[in-house]
Order: sequence, then C-alpha cells, then structure tokens
Amino acid sequence: MRYKLRLRHLQHALAENQIHALLVIALPNVRYLSGFSGSSAVLLVTEEDTVFFSDGRYSQQARDEVKGAHIVIGQSNLFDAAATYLKEHIRSRRGWRLGFEADYLTVSSRKRLAGRLPSGIRLTETHALVENARIIKDTDEIDLMQKAAKVGAGLLSDATKAIKNGKNEAEVAAEMEYSARAAGADAMSFSTIIAGGARSALPHARASMTAIPSGSFVVCDFGVILAGYCSDRTRTVFKGRPNADARNVYQAVLEAQRAGVEAIKPGVTAGEVDAACRKVLKSNNLDKYFTHSTGHGVGLEIHESPRLAAGQTQVLQPGMVVTVEPGVYIPGKWGVRIEDMVLVTAHGHEVLAPGSKELIAL
Amino acid sequence: MRYKLRLRHLQHALAENQIHALLVIALPNVRYLSGFSGSSAVLLVTEEDTVFFSDGRYSQQARDEVKGAHIVIGQSNLFDAAATYLKEHIRSRRGWRLGFEADYLTVSSRKRLAGRLPSGIRLTETHALVENARIIKDTDEIDLMQKAAKVGAGLLSDATKAIKNGKNEAEVAAEMEYSARAAGADAMSFSTIIAGGARSALPHARASMTAIPSGSFVVCDFGVILAGYCSDRTRTVFKGRPNADARNVYQAVLEAQRAGVEAIKPGVTAGEVDAACRKVLKSNNLDKYFTHSTGHGVGLEIHESPRLAAGQTQVLQPGMVVTVEPGVYIPGKWGVRIEDMVLVTAHGHEVLAPGSKELIAL
Repeated sequence: MRYKLRLRHLQHALAENQIHALLVIALPNVRYLSGFSGSSAVLLVTEEDTVFFSDGRYSQQARDEVKGAHIVIGQSNLFDAAATYLKEHIRSRRGWRLGFEADYLTVSSRKRLAGRLPSGIRLTETHALVENARIIKDTDEIDLMQKAAKVGAGLLSDATKAIKNGKNEAEVAAEMEYSARAAGADAMSFSTIIAGGARSALPHARASMTAIPSGSFVVCDFGVILAGYCSDRTRTVFKGRPNADARNVYQAVLEAQRAGVEAIKPGVTAGEVDAACRKVLKSNNLDKYFTHSTGHGVGLEIHESPRLAAGQTQVLQPGMVVTVEPGVYIPGKWGVRIEDMVLVTAHGHEVLAPGSKELIAL
Repeated sequence: MRYKLRLRHLQHALAENQIHALLVIALPNVRYLSGFSGSSAVLLVTEEDTVFFSDGRYSQQARDEVKGAHIVIGQSNLFDAAATYLKEHIRSRRGWRLGFEADYLTVSSRKRLAGRLPSGIRLTETHALVENARIIKDTDEIDLMQKAAKVGAGLLSDATKAIKNGKNEAEVAAEMEYSARAAGADAMSFSTIIAGGARSALPHARASMTAIPSGSFVVCDFGVILAGYCSDRTRTVFKGRPNADARNVYQAVLEAQRAGVEAIKPGVTAGEVDAACRKVLKSNNLDKYFTHSTGHGVGLEIHESPRLAAGQTQVLQPGMVVTVEPGVYIPGKWGVRIEDMVLVTAHGHEVLAPGSKELIAL
C-alpha cells in the first residue's frame, strides 16, 4: 500500500491549511495512513514525520503492521502520549498549530488534550482532511475492493440455499457469515439484513429469529470486510411463485437501479444519480415508497463520502466507489431493494462483481 | 424493562446537577432509557418528559420498541431536530441548562447544536450520568445477562470440536458464530479471539486464517449479544498433550483467576480484585507476563465501568457485573487466559454460567 504517498498528500494538505501537524484519531484514517488495523491508536502527522501511538496490547501488532511512522507504545491515554511527545520534540512552539479531527474528537478528549499541550501550541479544528483523500481509491485499494466485492457476492448462493431449505432469517445470515469467514473475511461489514414477509418493507431489518413466509420477497443486504475493505450488496429474492404484482414491483426497482448505475460517470453529480433512480420509480408511481437515499461511498468504512441523495452536488470522479441501491417499501406488505457497488472509471463506470439481477424465485 | 424507573432516576440526577434536561446521544444509554436498539437516535430527557428523535428509516422500529418517550421522526440531523423541539416547547429559557454527554459528543456536533439552540439555553458538559446508573444492573438486566452468559458459554463446545477437527482459527470462530446465531444471538459482542501457537501470546489476536499448531495453547475469547446484553468468556485449551511446563503455567493462571473471583464482594475495591490475581502470579514468578488489567464491567456494552485494574478505588456493589480475566503471555511462545463474568451479590458473588476451568487437552 502507498502509505508514503498518502502521508505526503496529507502533509501538502496541512501546509495548504497552515497547520503544522494533524492528530489523526479516526481509526479508518489511521489505518489508511499507517496500515494499523487495531482498535486503539492515534497518529501524529507533522510536516516532517509521522508518529504512531498505541498501548501495550498492540506493541507486537504495531511492529508488524505500521509503515512509515515512528512507533510509540506507552501511556494508556493516547492524547497524553501525543502531548508528551510534542513537549519533547517541538522546539519553537510560538504560533504552532495542531489540527484535530473535529468530527471525531469528543468534547472531553479535546479538553484533556488542550490541558496537556505545551504552551504555545494552538488547537485547530479540521474536517475531512484524510477522508477527502480516501474518497478516491488508488489502484491498490480498487484491487482489494474488487476482491471484497467478489467474496461478498458469493454469499448470495448460501442465502438462496438456506431460504430454500426453510431456514429462518438468522439461520440464513449464519450460513452466509460462515462462508464469509471460510473465504477469509475479517468480519461482516454490517449486521446482515435478511428480511422476509412484511419485514422486507423495513429498510433496516436485521436478520431475526423470524421464519421466512412463502409468497413474499426476501431482502438480502450483506457485505464482508476483507483486508480492511468493505463490500455491500443487496439482492431481493422471492420465496414461492411471484405473482404479476410482485414481478412489476421488482422490475421497476431493477430498472431504477440500472438507470442509476448507467448514470454514473465522471462529471455527473451524486444528486443526478439519485434523480435517475427516482425518475424511473416515479414513472411507475412507486417513488413515494423509496424512502431513503440512493447510495453512499464505500471503502475502509461501509458508509463513506460521497452521499448519493437528492440535491447532492458532489461531482463523481474516477476512483470513487459508490453503492446504487434504490428500494421500494410498501408498509405491511413487502419491499424490494437491489444494490451494486460501482467504481467510477475514467470514462464511465464498472460494476464490482457484476452478476445477474433478474428475479430469483425459490 | 423498568424504563420509567430509569428515567425517574435520571431526572433526579439532573435536578441534583442543576440541569433542566439532558441530551442523551450514546446509543447504549438511549437503549437503556428507552428500549430502542437501532443505530441512529438521540433522547431528550427533561424534568417532565422524554422525547425520542430518529430518522425515517426507524419510524416503524421506534414505534415497536420505544417506551416512555414521545417519538419524533423527522429531520435527518438529530441535533437540529432536538434544537427545533426545544425552540417550540421551552417557554422560559432564561438560565435554562441543557446537559450533553461530553464523553460522546464530538466537537463538530457540539458546535452545530450550540448554533441552533434557542437563545437563553446554555450547554453544560455532563459525564457518565446514565453510565453511573447502568453500572448497577437491575433484576431484569441480571436475568438477561445470565441468559447471554449461558448462550455464550455454550459456544466452547463448538470451538473444541472444531479445533479437534483441525480447523484454522477463522473456521473455529465461524463454527462458534454460527451456533450463536442459531441460539438467537443478535451478534457477537466483539471480534472472536481464537489464537493458537505463538499467537496465543498476543492478548488481542483476532481469529485469522492461521492453522492451529499442535503442542500449544489455544486462547478462545468470545461473547454474544443477546437481547442487547453482552457476554464475555475466555477458556484456553491445549491442542496435543500438555507438558509439565504448560500445566504449570495453566495452573498458575487458574489459581490467579480463582483468587480474583473469590475476592469479589460488596465493599472491596476494583483494585483489590486486580491485586488478588497479581499476587498469585507473582508467587509463581509470572506477574511480569500479565500485561493487561484484570477485568471490566459488562452489560449493554462489552466494556463498561468499573475497570478492575491496579489502584482502582471504585468500590464493588451488589448488581455490578464484571469480568475476571488474568492472563500470562510469554512472547514468541504461548499464552493462557481464563475469564468468567461475575455478578456482585448482597453478600459475595455469583459466577454467571459457571463451568469447568480445568485444562482441556484436545
């Protein structure tokens, strides 16, 4: 991975923002810049060097994983450790500005940090300095995301088999999660959604101990984390024989999803992709049942920038990876959602792990 | 669950702290006070009433789950929603103090909230107002934790079978996670740790694709979330035939763990429990290999107060549930950890889901 290049880009951004250093506390940002995958660390990126702080539980793992940074294992409070380091290493502190990630640092931690910083150093809020870089995936990342997408996509066959065999929602999820583990996934990227019957009309229904009734859609929304990168995919299958009503709803969502995918290319805004999906659903009089946004960026986190929603002006650029996932949810009756991960390429787009989206009846 | 009583206790605490309302943002606290199990909500607890805010994805779930609070589904930014509500409902705002959870609110969100509050309302930092109540489990919670502990404990047999069958670490974890799902668990309470060979000496080694070698310990640290409550348990087994050295290390950790459990009763400090474990390891010349603290509270979160570590002065009280989990880690060689969840009772303690801790050779 290109840690050195990433750090150099960040150091440019610091200079542009007239900040002497950034204290990186969001763990996905720490991982992006250093490779560390553990659960407790902060990274201090100054104009000249990078220092990684963690506690004793992670001394071995830090040595194994962290690239391009000096490792400090010690004080259990990592803000104290960073303050101590600055005290010892920054000579001329007058007007020295330390940036912090205001979207992650808590009010308590800011206070603690401020109270321990050597005099002369001033704390400065920053926003999305690292996230703005992460939004464009480099080729190493795209490679990993393709692998994650492929492993994720493979889990649908576990789901269909389990649904066919009469398993309940949680058992279906368990079969998928077992396969994910066996394929080398670190974990699932979010709580697997398996929602049958009227529960398919709940966009956020985690798999429960509920039996899956016949004569209904089953929304399957699932993803894995592989080497740190998340996959996200939804397929909706039908248990039993879908009637014309079911086929029509499914077809409308599928057309909306295809329209969204087709709209993706550099220069288009996130809002335009959302509009492309909504337009198809409107022509089918189903737009009022599409109650969430169209998609989101994905990478080290399951939800990243950009957000694909009405009015979003973010312009798509090559290297972004977004989901396109329109849905229709008819309360008390059923729901359908179809989702792919899509890479923005130089001239258009590429669906990661493409595969059939025709309605599967089980 | 006793939501009304919990809210009343919190309202007392607000009065004591001269705060007119608390904005609860930590999701486990929201769940504790309202029953909501989703991923996006804030709760506004005033002297007289309680208002629950979430977004459109959770309108149905909020109606199903939330008790004792007025539900507002609307603006996607929940801080904006709370500010709007206050503007409309609080008449005499002069000197009105709105508490916020400083250990959770980010610097950015604090700013946003402050910018939208009606004039006259003053923001005030609070710390652990809800967590201080959560530290003592009520009988409903103890009942749920016993169930979670039991389901969690049952997973060891899946682990031993899989290890015996030559599965790698991730496959062992997968078998356990499958069983957890089938037993009704919502999820695992943390990334399952299965660590064989020299990896058993890494206290935080998540299950990997590594084969488990013979002639070594295998640390299995695992837990489930059942109806919101976490379990946490560690057993260390031996793959192959343990020699005298292995038996001695294991026995020392087991004695240390038993000493820690035996020390637990009301009136004892958290630090004294830690000291009881360390004393046994010291008498075996192994204390320098015990590199972490002895335990932690557990409940709606896998790590809660109190912390069982050297010097901690928190006094144990009936209704607390803590882990006791000393370990010995000999770098590059192997490690042993044994852990139980222990309820502090009126006159002593009760191990949740007690079971054999003798060394199992596979």
